[in-house]
Amino acid sequence: MALERPGARLDASAPVLRGPVTLPLSRDDIRAAHERIRPYIRRTPVWSLPKGTLGHDGPVSLKLEFLQHAGSFKSRGAFNTLLKQPIPKAGVAAASGGNHGAAVAYAARQLGIPARVFVPEISSPAKVEVIRRLGAEVVIGGLRYADALAACGTYIAETGALSVHAYDALSTIEGQGTVALEWEEDGQGLDTVLVAVGGGGLISGIASWWAGRGVKVVGVEPEGSRALHASLEAGRPVDVTVESIAADSLGARNTGELVFSIARAAVDHVALVTDTAIREAQRTLWRDWRIASEPGGAAALAALLSGAYRPRSGERVGVLLCGANVELSKLGEII
Amino acid sequence: MALERPGARLDASAPVLRGPVTLPLSRDDIRAAHERIRPYIRRTPVWSLPKGTLGHDGPVSLKLEFLQHAGSFKSRGAFNTLLKQPIPKAGVAAASGGNHGAAVAYAARQLGIPARVFVPEISSPAKVEVIRRLGAEVVIGGLRYADALAACGTYIAETGALSVHAYDALSTIEGQGTVALEWEEDGQGLDTVLVAVGGGGLISGIASWWAGRGVKVVGVEPEGSRALHASLEAGRPVDVTVESIAADSLGARNTGELVFSIARAAVDHVALVTDTAIREAQRTLWRDWRIASEPGGAAALAALLSGAYRPRSGERVGVLLCGANVELSKLGEII
Repeated sequence: MALERPGARLDASAPVLRGPVTLPLSRDDIRAAHERIRPYIRRTPVWSLPKGTLGHDGPVSLKLEFLQHAGSFKSRGAFNTLLKQPIPKAGVAAASGGNHGAAVAYAARQLGIPARVFVPEISSPAKVEVIRRLGAEVVIGGLRYADALAACGTYIAETGALSVHAYDALSTIEGQGTVALEWEEDGQGLDTVLVAVGGGGLISGIASWWAGRGVKVVGVEPEGSRALHASLEAGRPVDVTVESIAADSLGARNTGELVFSIARAAVDHVALVTDTAIREAQRTLWRDWRIASEPGGAAALAALLSGAYRPRSGERVGVLLCGANVELSKLGEII
Repeated sequence: MALERPGARLDASAPVLRGPVTLPLSRDDIRAAHERIRPYIRRTPVWSLPKGTLGHDGPVSLKLEFLQHAGSFKSRGAFNTLLKQPIPKAGVAAASGGNHGAAVAYAARQLGIPARVFVPEISSPAKVEVIRRLGAEVVIGGLRYADALAACGTYIAETGALSVHAYDALSTIEGQGTVALEWEEDGQGLDTVLVAVGGGGLISGIASWWAGRGVKVVGVEPEGSRALHASLEAGRPVDVTVESIAADSLGARNTGELVFSIARAAVDHVALVTDTAIREAQRTLWRDWRIASEPGGAAALAALLSGAYRPRSGERVGVLLCGANVELSKLGEII
């Protein structure tokens, strides 16, 4: 499958390998996911802004996905996974101390399904409290995400609970891809979209939707948490160390094979942003837009504001504001 | 002018006097204001939500006006006033320790006009800092809003600066009315809109737009800050005492004659909400919607959530989220 690549690459980020690849999911799969989850999710606003916005001389389109249930796009993938298959008696289980955990808890409660969420000890008490408030049984254990994931795996093996992976699963990726479907239907035409990357489920869904359609999908990762960038550079999924203020939402160590295979074929490239640029984007979002954003939710905008991604003159740029699960007092401190 | 009044009044709030009144501004005036200010303001999103949202069994339309420049609808009136007439050499002056001051500062800076903003001593340091950061010269003096207004009046008399009143001026009201124009154009039909009332400039503009058009305009005031409610009850503008958590944005002591005359003719009634209901609406907006809202910006929603306004089954209800100039740390404390 030959993909169109409109517009030259304008920055010096990682090269991306390409080849004739059949993506593991199609637009029809994403359409079907949207039909499935539509009664449960919010169709978040697409805000078309004129030239001159955010320092760019072309139109800017913001998809306000931070207004989604449970505060991030993750609810889409969670609902799709829970609705797509029969749920075992033991319910569902997920490993996440953050947005994915909250989304699984929310979706499970709405559907009347028992949910157990394994969270690492480093998770913020506020996020854990959100997961608990949304009705999931929370199991805290292990220092890092990988430990929580292992504990979750053991529980699934013992009980037969359904696994809801945060990114390394087709049903998750299909759900996240519905962001792009809505954006295309509700917006005014795009040349490029900027999408923050953690484990890569979101960008995989979005890139699958727009593959070969003339919309350039650009990933944005923190310099200190670049699992996809490093994998594209290496030509295979590789582990990275994670150290970034956005680690709680973008801090995946490895994208896994599925995300890598989609991204290699359909993501234009990954732009890297500094933690300083992310903070500045958070400040801009609050000061000038009154949008409270977590670091991961501001990363895509940081690429535009900092010049880590430089659009050509007049380019129609979309920026996905994907999550707002921030502690207000902490955000207040950095503003 | 006989006004249509669709739908029975369903709650027990204040009676409203009516009569054949010619409103002091027309839809054409508001259209002209919109043409005037359009290059400078944001066309904020209208979010059409399905039945079942926010506990209501009919469609709900949210106008996300808190995303406006300087954090509230006030920028509309400020730009309209500054663009509608020649600006004297002394520039413009306004009295406000809050949203209006920020809006005048913002608009003046964008247009290259010197601005002086008189703020009462009770204003929060954070809001004063915003006004200063937006480029206005800030004069702090007098305990209350009325004192700042008097100082502003003296300055205007001495210098010939242009007064930008927060609500008691046609150009301000025309500007605020453009919220309704956009809402009508971008939304999906409304039976009722809920609008927070401080001095009443916003609701006067909105009610002027929809007068006689089958959209019921309902004001919302805090029980402890009910200038419009008391005036409609008394049949003339009257002073009230102000004590409410929303006082910094809704705390006007008197609406003035202009607002009173428009509201008497074109506002259906005013619903009163408790401070507790406002706090609860702020909590709901953050917890379930990730919208950071100031008390005044959450008041309209509080009427719907608390039952202070009870729509009939299936009624198409619009809720205006009009401002977000809250200190994040303070909001964090009450969440």
